[in-house]
Amino acid sequence: MSKSESLPPSSGGSEPRLSRASVNRFSLYLRHLERLAQEGVQKVSSGQLGDALGINDAQVRKDLAYLGNLGQPGIGYHAPELITALRHRLGIDRPWSAVLVGVGNLARALLRYRGFEEQGFRFVALFDADPQKVGQQVDGLVIRGPDEMPAVVAATGAELGVVTVPAAAAQTVADALVAAGIRGILNFAPTILRLPPGVSLVAVDLAVQLEQLAFLVHLAGNE
Amino acid sequence: MSKSESLPPSSGGSEPRLSRASVNRFSLYLRHLERLAQEGVQKVSSGQLGDALGINDAQVRKDLAYLGNLGQPGIGYHAPELITALRHRLGIDRPWSAVLVGVGNLARALLRYRGFEEQGFRFVALFDADPQKVGQQVDGLVIRGPDEMPAVVAATGAELGVVTVPAAAAQTVADALVAAGIRGILNFAPTILRLPPGVSLVAVDLAVQLEQLAFLVHLAGNE
Repeated sequence: MSKSESLPPSSGGSEPRLSRASVNRFSLYLRHLERLAQEGVQKVSSGQLGDALGINDAQVRKDLAYLGNLGQPGIGYHAPELITALRHRLGIDRPWSAVLVGVGNLARALLRYRGFEEQGFRFVALFDADPQKVGQQVDGLVIRGPDEMPAVVAATGAELGVVTVPAAAAQTVADALVAAGIRGILNFAPTILRLPPGVSLVAVDLAVQLEQLAFLVHLAGNE
Repeated sequence: MSKSESLPPSSGGSEPRLSRASVNRFSLYLRHLERLAQEGVQKVSSGQLGDALGINDAQVRKDLAYLGNLGQPGIGYHAPELITALRHRLGIDRPWSAVLVGVGNLARALLRYRGFEEQGFRFVALFDADPQKVGQQVDGLVIRGPDEMPAVVAATGAELGVVTVPAAAAQTVADALVAAGIRGILNFAPTILRLPPGVSLVAVDLAVQLEQLAFLVHLAGNE
């Protein structure tokens, strides 16, 4: 599952608030539209988008209305225009730099995951508390000790931190990342992190994912 | 993000349908309650649960009402009773066996992730199409070739399949898992899988997670 404990509170701003679920769907729309664009598809309807992603038509139209008046009745959306609007709205029409803490198997998998770079995310530094790992290189990046975090975050201008340490170390690591100036944390450790206001959090609990799958299978078996 | 394209359609059964978001929250409640139980906490209110997880009180009460009449007004819930009810409702009050296909870094991280075993999930077989990997052992399991899938799934009674192959191979692997009798797939490959009715799907797209974090940071910066 993925959740945020720090979705900013409802503000008096002029833009309507987006739910975490809408943000989730925006990412899905974007991923699917990019696939269509690669295949040369220019026009797409809310129904086609919904069918491909298992989201109902009305919800798709409501979500996309949030981006402005982009759809044309009876014709649909211009895919490249929708991609641009989504990337702008999601704040990923510019590159983002991330640091990663805890260089184990999961970290190595993440570093080699091509999807990140394609979406404009770049790992700029790695940290690990294990002195045996400090100084080693992984995918062109030198693993550094936690004491270097403030200087490295400042020097690289990294805004995001990915936490792949064991649960027991995760809060300490998160506190250090926040102290170093990181503004958002992607947490893979199976523990709930407490972050100060203004620092965003997305948590990926892998056991929860498998649990939800078991539940869906259980439910399907009882139909 | 995590999504299911195969939530069973609304049926005429007697139990109210659960949304994917509720299932998500159930997993969160369970994780938090287990932590409380470890700390010896016996009583918990919907407000405490909600505060800890960033979910509003009314939603917590509505969700938990789905489990039956477990709460007592002014007192709250008995944590161990709630845990039992949640595990039963989620279908994880029994062990589940899973096979994994694609033994790279992500697979190795998943195999070593203790949370799975604690929640009753057990990996019983590994598959990889690379002949160099077939025959190797990882964490006590021998990597097998894809041709052994039907026999191994039948012999182990595995119901869940975890897909950690590259995107280009994911649909073929999913089809093979389904043909072998797997009833639910946890997909880490960054591609949308098509599964037949009755086979459940949870997809974890790691780039989407980072994208959502960037969006939250972007949004927080514009407040």
